[in-house]
Amino acid sequence: MEARVSLVTLGVQDLQRALRFYRDGLGWPLSSASSDEIAFLRTGGVVLALFPREALAADAHVAAAGSGFGGMTLAHNVRSKEVVDTVLAEAVAAGGTLLKPAEEASWGGYAGYFADPDGFPWEVAWNPHFPLAPDGSLRLPE
Amino acid sequence: MEARVSLVTLGVQDLQRALRFYRDGLGWPLSSASSDEIAFLRTGGVVLALFPREALAADAHVAAAGSGFGGMTLAHNVRSKEVVDTVLAEAVAAGGTLLKPAEEASWGGYAGYFADPDGFPWEVAWNPHFPLAPDGSLRLPE
Repeated sequence: MEARVSLVTLGVQDLQRALRFYRDGLGWPLSSASSDEIAFLRTGGVVLALFPREALAADAHVAAAGSGFGGMTLAHNVRSKEVVDTVLAEAVAAGGTLLKPAEEASWGGYAGYFADPDGFPWEVAWNPHFPLAPDGSLRLPE
Repeated sequence: MEARVSLVTLGVQDLQRALRFYRDGLGWPLSSASSDEIAFLRTGGVVLALFPREALAADAHVAAAGSGFGGMTLAHNVRSKEVVDTVLAEAVAAGGTLLKPAEEASWGGYAGYFADPDGFPWEVAWNPHFPLAPDGSLRLPE
């Protein structure tokens, strides 16, 4: 498993309020890959995504209530669909917990989730719409 | 404020257990900037830091108990000491909350914390030991 964090996703209470802060307040550039449901901000080194907290927990198959979910997931994107299951198995072998076996995603890719030993959820994803640069970083449209 | 995430810090229950997962299990490279108290993993695009959860909350001036702290902070590193206060003020003006006014840090830099509207803590830091690359990314020693 290559050492890489591709996105940081904040599970937010109110996406429009979060956009007013990051896009309008801080002036961070919003990618056209964004929708009414999720926002992708093009930042140096890592992509920052904003997504409603309840929907994020549901996607990762964790309970949203209580203190079990800290409101944050990390993503590790890979270059091919076949690698997703390999990486999930490697994470479990290393002491992680499988939260969601890999499956075809509604957005056209293939992804699953594991939790690290502290319970932080990681998505392992192949996304044909987001090719990786030669250096492994994620390429978002302008 | 430039659009950049410099580090992702996981507030972990047991640093040695987390190191066994990331360094030994996943094989991610540990930087020599690490100590017995904090671990820096050199990953593509963003640096992943591991730090005890209680100590991380104390550094950010947030209560560790309950569900108020999600176990994660984000860092925005800047090129000069003078910029730290400017960025903190800009974040507050954009709707953020000041958690910790900037002060001289024990590790030789200058740093403070703000919370975004959802309460996610961000450290704004000038760290003379971690110069920024021309592209804004953080340069850690091997």
